[in-house]
Amino acid sequence: MTSLAVVDLLGALAYGELVSFERIASDARLAPELEDNIVLAGIAATEYSHFVQVCDRLTQLGFDPNQAMEPFVAPLNQFHANMSTDSWLERVLMVYVADGIAADFYREMSTHLDEQTASLVLHVLADAGQTEFAVSRIRDAIAHDPKVAGRLALWGRRLMGEMISQATVVASARPELQKLFFQVAGSADEITAFVNRLTVGHARRMDVLGLAS
Amino acid sequence: MTSLAVVDLLGALAYGELVSFERIASDARLAPELEDNIVLAGIAATEYSHFVQVCDRLTQLGFDPNQAMEPFVAPLNQFHANMSTDSWLERVLMVYVADGIAADFYREMSTHLDEQTASLVLHVLADAGQTEFAVSRIRDAIAHDPKVAGRLALWGRRLMGEMISQATVVASARPELQKLFFQVAGSADEITAFVNRLTVGHARRMDVLGLAS
Repeated sequence: MTSLAVVDLLGALAYGELVSFERIASDARLAPELEDNIVLAGIAATEYSHFVQVCDRLTQLGFDPNQAMEPFVAPLNQFHANMSTDSWLERVLMVYVADGIAADFYREMSTHLDEQTASLVLHVLADAGQTEFAVSRIRDAIAHDPKVAGRLALWGRRLMGEMISQATVVASARPELQKLFFQVAGSADEITAFVNRLTVGHARRMDVLGLAS
Repeated sequence: MTSLAVVDLLGALAYGELVSFERIASDARLAPELEDNIVLAGIAATEYSHFVQVCDRLTQLGFDPNQAMEPFVAPLNQFHANMSTDSWLERVLMVYVADGIAADFYREMSTHLDEQTASLVLHVLADAGQTEFAVSRIRDAIAHDPKVAGRLALWGRRLMGEMISQATVVASARPELQKLFFQVAGSADEITAFVNRLTVGHARRMDVLGLAS
């Protein structure tokens, strides 16, 4: 018997992959160089295949993927609407930062899933090339003009804050998912520790770019 | 020995597929319904696989895909910049109309290509589902509000005009490609007939939607 929390988790993950696919494909069009455009298109295509795999798993478990995704459409769209930007570098940073935080979160949650679902979750979270891409492009940009670092650091903080805020909206609307989260975390103290681990992971990724978190 | 015209043709086709992929993936994000979002994402992913196949053929023939695409980046980007719109229906119509005209054009050109390249061109031109999608959504919208038909008919005419205008830019910059075009058409009279066939194909597609061309 699959718990509703697992369906929620997969639904959120599936819609996250779909939005990520569309977001990266849109970013690709804005790439200043054809080469970067092509690299990002490839990353987007990988995200699409992840989306299909998560939907297939939901179907296998006897659930309708669209229904499973529906509760997460509004909060995820809101997140992207709040973080919309025309800046190429902010968009590059966003993919790296948001995917990193999401991956850390799902990786911890996957420890409470059945083996097959957990292995799928770990598979679709695997880096599709966005880390190497973002790190090299952002480092180059900072080397070329150190002033951009301050603006990007601020953007990274806003991203983290906005993700926590939307996650809170989701948690309060999906009690089953919230219960799973509490199970994964353990006690109230452990919840703080869990959130701290996410913050540390975020800081580490910003640090790789030479940005303050 | 592969003629430079064939490399140009494949380069233009490859970049066209890449832009199409990114354009449809961006459209998907704007879909009012999750179901439409998912259908468009699937069409976009098919366009990406077409892009990869054309690049692979260029590599097989001994050419660098990026170099082959480069001459077509500016005119295709200009086309999309000129036809940028926030209207969901105009975007849906654009995919259907522009892909249709491009497919008619490449299909005629393919008669002068080697068999393997021609069969690849025909394969990547195959409808990825965009016709059925566009026709049903636009018909529904017109049935719901007949006033949109006038605006969409105008948009369809602008699309055709803008494509001819950018094609002229490309033709004057790529003499080898222009020569192949003249060979395919035959005589000067035949060129007029070729363009007329494209116009007739466009009118037929607009007609399917109940729109004047």
